[in-house]
Amino acid sequence: MAAVESASTFTPAPEADKTADGTPPAAYGPTSRTVTSRDRDRASYDRELVHSLLDQSYVCHLGFVRDGAPVVLPTLYARVGERLYVHGSTGSRPLRMAAANPSAAGNDGATATDGAGTTPDAADPGAASSEDAADAGQSRPGLAVCLTVTHLDGVVLARSAFHHSINYRSVVVHGVAHQVTDPHERTVALDALVNHVVPGRAADCRPGNAKELAATAVLRLDLKEVSAKWRDGGPNDEPEDLGLPHWAGVLPVAPRYGTPIPSDDLDPAIPLPDYLAER
Amino acid sequence: MAAVESASTFTPAPEADKTADGTPPAAYGPTSRTVTSRDRDRASYDRELVHSLLDQSYVCHLGFVRDGAPVVLPTLYARVGERLYVHGSTGSRPLRMAAANPSAAGNDGATATDGAGTTPDAADPGAASSEDAADAGQSRPGLAVCLTVTHLDGVVLARSAFHHSINYRSVVVHGVAHQVTDPHERTVALDALVNHVVPGRAADCRPGNAKELAATAVLRLDLKEVSAKWRDGGPNDEPEDLGLPHWAGVLPVAPRYGTPIPSDDLDPAIPLPDYLAER
Repeated sequence: MAAVESASTFTPAPEADKTADGTPPAAYGPTSRTVTSRDRDRASYDRELVHSLLDQSYVCHLGFVRDGAPVVLPTLYARVGERLYVHGSTGSRPLRMAAANPSAAGNDGATATDGAGTTPDAADPGAASSEDAADAGQSRPGLAVCLTVTHLDGVVLARSAFHHSINYRSVVVHGVAHQVTDPHERTVALDALVNHVVPGRAADCRPGNAKELAATAVLRLDLKEVSAKWRDGGPNDEPEDLGLPHWAGVLPVAPRYGTPIPSDDLDPAIPLPDYLAER
Repeated sequence: MAAVESASTFTPAPEADKTADGTPPAAYGPTSRTVTSRDRDRASYDRELVHSLLDQSYVCHLGFVRDGAPVVLPTLYARVGERLYVHGSTGSRPLRMAAANPSAAGNDGATATDGAGTTPDAADPGAASSEDAADAGQSRPGLAVCLTVTHLDGVVLARSAFHHSINYRSVVVHGVAHQVTDPHERTVALDALVNHVVPGRAADCRPGNAKELAATAVLRLDLKEVSAKWRDGGPNDEPEDLGLPHWAGVLPVAPRYGTPIPSDDLDPAIPLPDYLAER
């Protein structure tokens, strides 16, 4: 976890670890947490696939352990090379709880609020998990997390109830998130979080000032223990069910962007930016 | 947790706990895990609101603890009164792992696969968490989970990077999930899981046979420790930023269903059912 240990000394995000011949490996190495013993044909560790699935969304569900129990909260994320970033308010209740909780001492964390930027909910520092403990030798214990991104693509209707399913694409990232303290890396991360949601927007708004930056925590999760999983295609009915009189097929579903709604107090002379007109 | 302890003896799902005058309370009781000290104006424990947000989606992100670390997986869910159900394959690797893991002995669990029904991924029994341990007095230890449902409604663009945000509606449910063993309740739950995704479909497909039902695990999570959170409206810019030349407003987003795609082997004489034509 050298990259994590060096979090306080910014280095450009690596596109990928290099192999002996200097080329990045095409896939993440499976681990006991990411390898699947079933549906192997629907699981992948391919780096390009993982990057593509991560880059096609911006809301993840971040899981962590607090007082021994799981907590799952939606939050925004952005990918920069082999690093994922999430952010939030340093003034949030969860962070205060962690500071007051010896078992969570040293945990990094972030919670997401409107005031903290483009994040819908809280990434919440929890009591140190066993992974935190295992990480104790690091510059910071960090927060053991599972970051999951899911694309819903369709509802699969089979002749049998049993074979009904969902077409989806998901990425699950396991690891320990660490707070980013380096000012340069924080700027890179915060710009990425804005541009990941609306490409080009970071250059077309007022950057955070000292007060706003001081109120914002940034967490980094390196892409090391990663897997993708998906289901596509039509229903897989049993041969003996093919003659049943029930409609079978797929109901596609995908997010759709509507017409941008200008703020009530927007100067009418300010046109809709191209990066929104193109959505 | 009486309702949980009686899981093996089916009783109709209560619409809600009753108050002294026989009417259900209008809200869930806040707990240390669901009360928020910030953004109180964006949090609610209102029962009708929670039910509405849960009923408007069918994919949740289920978090649990395995070997002390968090795991977050997408899975389908359905609400029946004050109970949520998820399901999955009893033959999954995670269940086998739990069975082989003394610290997880007795955990109920489910993993979701195509073969197990309409679930995109796995709800995975974990090593017993502290909440499981605290629950040891119950008929079954169960699995401590956090079930989160998130609706993404829009991207909020403010004049300042700091005030960029997301319009969303989310529900977070904390509790201990227990395996449902009662045949009647399992049938109610499995029908609900199909109908929650496609209303009316459970009556228009072949019900699960003995082999399929034996391969499917059902978990129940009672709605006790629940909160809703949301953000809506336009950007909240600082007064001094209102004159900046940046477009500000909301880019709406919502899931959109496409035209149903019939299975290649569907009898052309079978028409598209009304419950799909209306989507």
